[in-house]
Amino acid sequence: MTDDQEPGSPRLSRRGLLGLAGAGVVGAGLGFGVDRVFTPEASAASGAAASYPFFGEHQSGIITAAQDRLHFAAFDVSDITAAELEELLSDWTYAANRMTTGLGAGQYGPASGPYDAPPDDTGEALDLPPSGLTITFGFGPTLFDDRFGLAGRRPEALIDLPHFPGDALVPALTGGDLCIQACSDDPQVAVHAIRNLSRIAFGRASLRWSQLGFGRTSSTTRAQATPRNLFGFKDGTANLRAEDSDTAADVWARASDGARWMAGGSYLVARKIRMTIETWDRSSLREQERVVGRTKGEGAPLSGGTEFTAPDFDATGRQDAPLIDEAAHVRLAHPDTNGGAKMLRRGYNFVDGNDDLGRLNAGLFFICFQRDPREQFVPIQLRLAKNDAMNEYLRHVGSGIFAVPPGAKTGGSIGDGLFG
Amino acid sequence: MTDDQEPGSPRLSRRGLLGLAGAGVVGAGLGFGVDRVFTPEASAASGAAASYPFFGEHQSGIITAAQDRLHFAAFDVSDITAAELEELLSDWTYAANRMTTGLGAGQYGPASGPYDAPPDDTGEALDLPPSGLTITFGFGPTLFDDRFGLAGRRPEALIDLPHFPGDALVPALTGGDLCIQACSDDPQVAVHAIRNLSRIAFGRASLRWSQLGFGRTSSTTRAQATPRNLFGFKDGTANLRAEDSDTAADVWARASDGARWMAGGSYLVARKIRMTIETWDRSSLREQERVVGRTKGEGAPLSGGTEFTAPDFDATGRQDAPLIDEAAHVRLAHPDTNGGAKMLRRGYNFVDGNDDLGRLNAGLFFICFQRDPREQFVPIQLRLAKNDAMNEYLRHVGSGIFAVPPGAKTGGSIGDGLFG
Repeated sequence: MTDDQEPGSPRLSRRGLLGLAGAGVVGAGLGFGVDRVFTPEASAASGAAASYPFFGEHQSGIITAAQDRLHFAAFDVSDITAAELEELLSDWTYAANRMTTGLGAGQYGPASGPYDAPPDDTGEALDLPPSGLTITFGFGPTLFDDRFGLAGRRPEALIDLPHFPGDALVPALTGGDLCIQACSDDPQVAVHAIRNLSRIAFGRASLRWSQLGFGRTSSTTRAQATPRNLFGFKDGTANLRAEDSDTAADVWARASDGARWMAGGSYLVARKIRMTIETWDRSSLREQERVVGRTKGEGAPLSGGTEFTAPDFDATGRQDAPLIDEAAHVRLAHPDTNGGAKMLRRGYNFVDGNDDLGRLNAGLFFICFQRDPREQFVPIQLRLAKNDAMNEYLRHVGSGIFAVPPGAKTGGSIGDGLFG
Repeated sequence: MTDDQEPGSPRLSRRGLLGLAGAGVVGAGLGFGVDRVFTPEASAASGAAASYPFFGEHQSGIITAAQDRLHFAAFDVSDITAAELEELLSDWTYAANRMTTGLGAGQYGPASGPYDAPPDDTGEALDLPPSGLTITFGFGPTLFDDRFGLAGRRPEALIDLPHFPGDALVPALTGGDLCIQACSDDPQVAVHAIRNLSRIAFGRASLRWSQLGFGRTSSTTRAQATPRNLFGFKDGTANLRAEDSDTAADVWARASDGARWMAGGSYLVARKIRMTIETWDRSSLREQERVVGRTKGEGAPLSGGTEFTAPDFDATGRQDAPLIDEAAHVRLAHPDTNGGAKMLRRGYNFVDGNDDLGRLNAGLFFICFQRDPREQFVPIQLRLAKNDAMNEYLRHVGSGIFAVPPGAKTGGSIGDGLFG
């Protein structure tokens, strides 16, 4: 191959190229050869060579088997026009599709010239396979203000999240007009994606906040073992799984829900939850298991059984005390006690160094997807925020909600529905 | 197995147990069963099950094939006695040896009781294999002040690093009495190690600064492919490798060097180097290759050949200009232009979120090991700091130097030589 660009397929816009180049010279569009050897045909592979299609009915990175690593980014859109926003989303689509197949972000790649222009890919993923990369885009509530004429397009389900009891949100870690979730089994591939998309956005949108996650805390398919969070407990045992028959109804928005353009999309809620792990680590095993409502080793409900045994919230022990505490996390979060409400959780563990007191700045970067946050995240989180015994060991410091549009059609843009 | 503790082998000290428990109740020493299934016999395995012995002539984590992920931590020792410091190092040895074999940090593990005491392991690595974990301890210059009676033990090679031109060191990211480098192919295993060692140190030493690295930037064995740093270039092509005959002479301190107790040890220099990647990303491919002195794709020297071709610093091109620029990084860092001085580099890429201006806070966490920093890191870095064309795109914000003692003998402590 000397040029991987198909005739008639989209190219990066002139503004997108300027983002790469600053005020520099931009190449004349000559083919300079492909830099990376993985092609969309590798999509069926597994392991490091795994790749997921970018185009399709739904965006990848939602019911996709949760990858091991995360780089999440929220952006503020600059003072640009609606047409320029539309072009940005088109440029992002172009680059995201390429990167999920293992190609560089732009046509020339990081190392193939033109020599007097900046490379159109930064290069740190040059020798790396797709590693299961998914890139998932979302639109925050503020995108629907009066700047871009989109107020009438705002989905009703894209609410402003209410204040939850105990919230200690830091504005610099909260909100955003746009978000990108990049997940991969190789962190360098996820970082490469966010870096190159940020670069393409130069002058049009800038990073507001971002988060690396090193370990997944949920499984989203039956084949995946349940991972552990930084409390040391299994997390997501009762999570929705891609194979489950009712998952689609809980995850995907429908045309009849209100915003027709969101049909096949979903709503993402992100919460940066700092764990006070030093306090947790000094609590007894009995207290830890009481708070969670499950055993620490096996992850079985305290009402008995093994990890996947349904919790029996009515079971009692000595002196008729419930085996699963009234304030246990598993009780308050469970669908059985929330009118059946479920979300697809897809969170990650994080450690951001340590604070001035020598405590690790660590916790859970919670991400969930759902059909309607008003029926799912919000009522569940309100209940947890009021009563969960775990609150003593948590602090919510960041938050975001985003409408995640359906997948783009081949050759289309992730913004097509929004502006359609 | 119901108790993995061999008769007569060391146990965690009472203070170490108190670190786990705070002021709480500590278990009575009864065996509660082993929580993790990996034993030292798995040492010969590869991949996730790989484990490296903790005890031996040298510490692991130096010439060990560089693992993919890093958690590095520097500690300040609290107001304790020399005997208490010695005990801390013994407790760390005990836990580090266990964790590198895949066991929990303490005897009971995270999930096996006693129920009214805090677990003696935090649990997030409970189901994970050793994943090539190495834990490497070091002693900073300040440990040899007048607090612990160690002034006379300070190795001459453990200098205070000079100020280098352009240094922008942040005190909170610099120095430390002790350091621990935890490397693993699974970041959760590396984080687990630092977290549990920090916890054991409670009241005796506290985290001063710490750093996660997501991608290795050097190879230390011939079998490893050369990775890329966040400039997008291959890094460490000319690095020392474990198999090379002269590596031992460049890495290991000798009894005849001065401090006899450091024989078989090494000296670690860490530098947190922030890259101004947005500026770099807007420079032309020609400029990037000029600065590095190698091609971006193949990593070949600009004097010609392929990645492992020796650079020809005398080769000239048009108008007799040198093919490798006079200020190119490869020229200034190369052993041929530094009187043969070489170091074993073992650094990692990092991204710590973004700054207020939307720029990724990203760069290289540089780590190197050497026999004597006065002959190796310091003269090379002085030369680079003065002349390297790469300085325009770098800022050194953190720094540390540590004497890394030889490996502990089986059943001994990493502090035996220091206090011997």
